[in-house]
Amino acid sequence: MKLIFKKSDLNEAVSIVSKAIPTRTTMSILECIFIDATTDRITFTANDMELGIETQVEGEIIERGQIAINSKIFSEIVRKLPENEVIISTDENYYMNIVSENAKFNIAGKSGDDFTRLPAVEKEKFIYLSQLTLKEIIRQTIFSISLNDESSTGKLMSGELFEINNNKLKVTSLDTHRISIRKVELKESFENVSVIVPGKTLNEVIKVLNGGNDDEVRIFFTRNSEFSGNGYSHIVFEFGSTVVVSRLIEGKYFNVSQMISSDYDVKLNVNRRELLECIDRATLMANESDKKPIIVSVTDGNVEIQIKSNLGSMDENIEATKEGKDIMIGFNPKFVMDALKAIDDEDVDIYMLNAKSPCFIKDKDENYVYIILPVNFNV
Amino acid sequence: MKLIFKKSDLNEAVSIVSKAIPTRTTMSILECIFIDATTDRITFTANDMELGIETQVEGEIIERGQIAINSKIFSEIVRKLPENEVIISTDENYYMNIVSENAKFNIAGKSGDDFTRLPAVEKEKFIYLSQLTLKEIIRQTIFSISLNDESSTGKLMSGELFEINNNKLKVTSLDTHRISIRKVELKESFENVSVIVPGKTLNEVIKVLNGGNDDEVRIFFTRNSEFSGNGYSHIVFEFGSTVVVSRLIEGKYFNVSQMISSDYDVKLNVNRRELLECIDRATLMANESDKKPIIVSVTDGNVEIQIKSNLGSMDENIEATKEGKDIMIGFNPKFVMDALKAIDDEDVDIYMLNAKSPCFIKDKDENYVYIILPVNFNV
Repeated sequence: MKLIFKKSDLNEAVSIVSKAIPTRTTMSILECIFIDATTDRITFTANDMELGIETQVEGEIIERGQIAINSKIFSEIVRKLPENEVIISTDENYYMNIVSENAKFNIAGKSGDDFTRLPAVEKEKFIYLSQLTLKEIIRQTIFSISLNDESSTGKLMSGELFEINNNKLKVTSLDTHRISIRKVELKESFENVSVIVPGKTLNEVIKVLNGGNDDEVRIFFTRNSEFSGNGYSHIVFEFGSTVVVSRLIEGKYFNVSQMISSDYDVKLNVNRRELLECIDRATLMANESDKKPIIVSVTDGNVEIQIKSNLGSMDENIEATKEGKDIMIGFNPKFVMDALKAIDDEDVDIYMLNAKSPCFIKDKDENYVYIILPVNFNV
Repeated sequence: MKLIFKKSDLNEAVSIVSKAIPTRTTMSILECIFIDATTDRITFTANDMELGIETQVEGEIIERGQIAINSKIFSEIVRKLPENEVIISTDENYYMNIVSENAKFNIAGKSGDDFTRLPAVEKEKFIYLSQLTLKEIIRQTIFSISLNDESSTGKLMSGELFEINNNKLKVTSLDTHRISIRKVELKESFENVSVIVPGKTLNEVIKVLNGGNDDEVRIFFTRNSEFSGNGYSHIVFEFGSTVVVSRLIEGKYFNVSQMISSDYDVKLNVNRRELLECIDRATLMANESDKKPIIVSVTDGNVEIQIKSNLGSMDENIEATKEGKDIMIGFNPKFVMDALKAIDDEDVDIYMLNAKSPCFIKDKDENYVYIILPVNFNV
């Protein structure tokens, strides 16, 4: 195999596919990028068996071939090459020569035969979103997935529910203390879909999406030929010259709609940024070891945030518009801050029933809904 | 005590003095910033007994007083306050109230009585440098101090030798593999000085020096009244409204001049940046576990850098002007890179005798001299 690339093209491709390289594995083939130039196009692929990324790379094929090469060492070399042409060639023992200007590297590769290609999936029907929209809805929900996927419930909570109903995509994530929901309108109607996408996949997808509002992502919900269950087995994201294929999480997601209520006894309208900065200051008094809540006291026209720990105390008042009764309620400050950070609006509406019931932060059309469980506190 | 500050003044002062707060200590008073407003001026001081920093802060004194306050929690609070006026007051139990806009913090402080003030030192004679020059000479030598100060030799190597002879300041640092020397001219002559300044002090001094070429630092070599040895006990850096006082390291520094020779069999002139980037690429093949050297082969008009490890091999040629014989010599790539990074010149002269003798990188006037021991290699 002998290929010629521009360094910048090579660098971009390596940086895209390396997102699917597992951080820890005992199988050295999974640490490899598979370079396929057996046809007229050059593709780079990485695949950790859950998540696979393939990207087509601009380059000249002098001699066809294929090889698997350790991602870490290959990407470090590529990154440090001069900004110029790079010639990559391999010999019959799977050694790879990388030549650029006067620098010449020689590293050991592997036969591509052991590399597991991306699963063959049907790609017929798809929805499309702008890259920016997809990035935003992931960013605005991903923080409330569960990081502990050891139990079967934990496994479900480590993903996000993607639901399509007519021309609406609804994305839900939750852990044991909170729920985040985002809705976006699609340009066209689509059949009903309800799948759980691994959080890990979504975290890598946002890193790889480099486009903005004018660049499109096509999302396929699909099944591969070996899949015996009902519904879909895989989700595929296609954008630019890159394809991301991920397994879905099997199982039945939580019935979130039954937890959502529109009853409230207090409705608060407050400047998002002011509230966020105030809670951020309060967290200075939140000690890792004694996890004190913030206490929120709502009276007419005023919200008081208080916290008291072994570090000291903090107390701050901010202006607000209130409808309904006065309330005193405790929260884990991090959960409130995560939701406030995910919202772009200048003001937010916060709905509460009592000190034991979930609190809702949502907009009028429920394009976003954040639900946070309060915590007990002692005054 | 009751004081009023602008948040930005407070923030800057806290960030300056907190450089003298030890990262680990069992004495909680050492973790404190001492706020002294017993006279008409307000000073903040931190002192880890080796290194002390005091800075005068702009502010209004409503009621005089003093307090010691935990540096970490105080600086975190100050950093997150709104950009506005900050009122700091204390009560008779050493509790501190910090009020800014609608935010009110209350944290526990300590009586200032236990705080060790900066040592009283004579400050008569001093040299002065621009802040930029002092920052540069520290940056250009600090990388070759020894980080292991457990033995008495290690202790000496953990500092830098500051020598003054007439109107020249010479700064030397060394570890067991290399020596770095920088010389700068002073505006005036000064008495002979030869002191060892702790590397830790210098590392903090560069962080605190915020000025440029037009801002001055006054450096005092001095002794405090309790010091019984010969010569000086302390070095003092004065700039802006800040004073840094540091103990000196006692002992006799290494006789570096006897290691310096102007004999050479090969003189190489090479583009600094090209050589640096080439060695940087070569380090990709330098494995932590098997520490392979780079092999430098100098022939007429050419320098070849090679490295071979269990990761693979790298080979690169760069143009150079050579006087004298051909040579093949091995180096720890990090040591050569550290020296090359510290030099600003476009081209550097490298002097070598043979594969066993130290290599010199220096300019014509020896304003900088970097000496690196070669390492053995197998071809």
